[in-house]
Amino acid sequence: MPINPNADMELTAFAWVPEPAQGLVKDVRVRWALEEGGFDYRVRLIGLERPPGYGDEQPFHQVPCFRDGQVQIFESGAILEYIGAKSEALLPRDTREKYRAIQWTYAALSSIEPFVQFRALLNNFWADQEWAEPSKPTFDQLAQLRLGQLAERLGDKQWLEGDRFTIGDIAMVTVLRLAARAGLIGDRANLEAYVKRGEARPAFQRALKDQLAAFREHEPQGEAA
Amino acid sequence: MPINPNADMELTAFAWVPEPAQGLVKDVRVRWALEEGGFDYRVRLIGLERPPGYGDEQPFHQVPCFRDGQVQIFESGAILEYIGAKSEALLPRDTREKYRAIQWTYAALSSIEPFVQFRALLNNFWADQEWAEPSKPTFDQLAQLRLGQLAERLGDKQWLEGDRFTIGDIAMVTVLRLAARAGLIGDRANLEAYVKRGEARPAFQRALKDQLAAFREHEPQGEAA
Repeated sequence: MPINPNADMELTAFAWVPEPAQGLVKDVRVRWALEEGGFDYRVRLIGLERPPGYGDEQPFHQVPCFRDGQVQIFESGAILEYIGAKSEALLPRDTREKYRAIQWTYAALSSIEPFVQFRALLNNFWADQEWAEPSKPTFDQLAQLRLGQLAERLGDKQWLEGDRFTIGDIAMVTVLRLAARAGLIGDRANLEAYVKRGEARPAFQRALKDQLAAFREHEPQGEAA
Repeated sequence: MPINPNADMELTAFAWVPEPAQGLVKDVRVRWALEEGGFDYRVRLIGLERPPGYGDEQPFHQVPCFRDGQVQIFESGAILEYIGAKSEALLPRDTREKYRAIQWTYAALSSIEPFVQFRALLNNFWADQEWAEPSKPTFDQLAQLRLGQLAERLGDKQWLEGDRFTIGDIAMVTVLRLAARAGLIGDRANLEAYVKRGEARPAFQRALKDQLAAFREHEPQGEAA
């Protein structure tokens, strides 16, 4: 069990989030990478109201943040790269393969996630806006275009670059879990199978379990079952 | 002049784009980094209809793509990192500073650009949609929240991490140029000055000039002045 209060690496995550976000908060990416690499890490849990001065660590007031000695960074993609540089299991050393893994990390977080995220917001946070319903076809089309292009590129490969699992797959699988939750995967069987392959990895299972365990432990009084 | 038809590094860009996109197409990031690092590169220009099989190189059918020997990648963030690894002028070698630069590259492309891009689309591509106007306050608020947080973090620093210019600044300045074009910078004087500092760098000037020169040369017949 790599969660260890004396570890050097520190992950900052939320102590609790509302049910729809549980299991999808972005620290699960970092937990997954740490578990794949077999690293010990400690977890600093913060409240949704954020601790004083948190903007100095994370200017957008989000999670995760990450610390390891003198290194203190935010942005899950950058944290995945930092962990990847410490573990060849996550990021190949060969230059060609290394930058293809990094390319997929960026692709997940900037070419797929925004389209999924905005479409998902229409289903929940923006559902009561008068423009939400009429805008759905446009946002659906955008999200489906990108997901279709990704599905075509993935084909019947096991991971994005074939048989080699990398940080790019961690980023992409976690983004596609958001897409699945928003009902956007549809009948793209290869994307669905790819997400299931990712979720079946023991390191992912531990990461998810640990994120959810914190939420159960810190469930607000009066909202517990 | 680093554009050299015999160079090993090859950048793929559009031969021509409509006027509103001119100067803003994402290959300007890569050109800028190559100019800062003093690298020779050649340019492969493609049409908007894309060459056959282009999806094998860039699954989302966008530019830029990049090639250097056996390395063949897409996603401007990944390309910036690849070039940065070859030039300490762009990406510090110290681990702490290196990952802070990478963190800002991700922040620009996944925490700022999507909000700017969606708000900009409401002004142009989506302007005739019935839901465009009523949705603007929501998208304005999102974009302004992130830009305000960025402005607060930047403060009166020269570059995102102080006096040291990195690939993170290349990514962020080019994203903020999109924001400026969409009228989103407003009275945030420090962001405006930051963009101007970036644009004043000779390497940026050469990058912009070269992107625009290709468009002038390939302007469609009948649309030329």
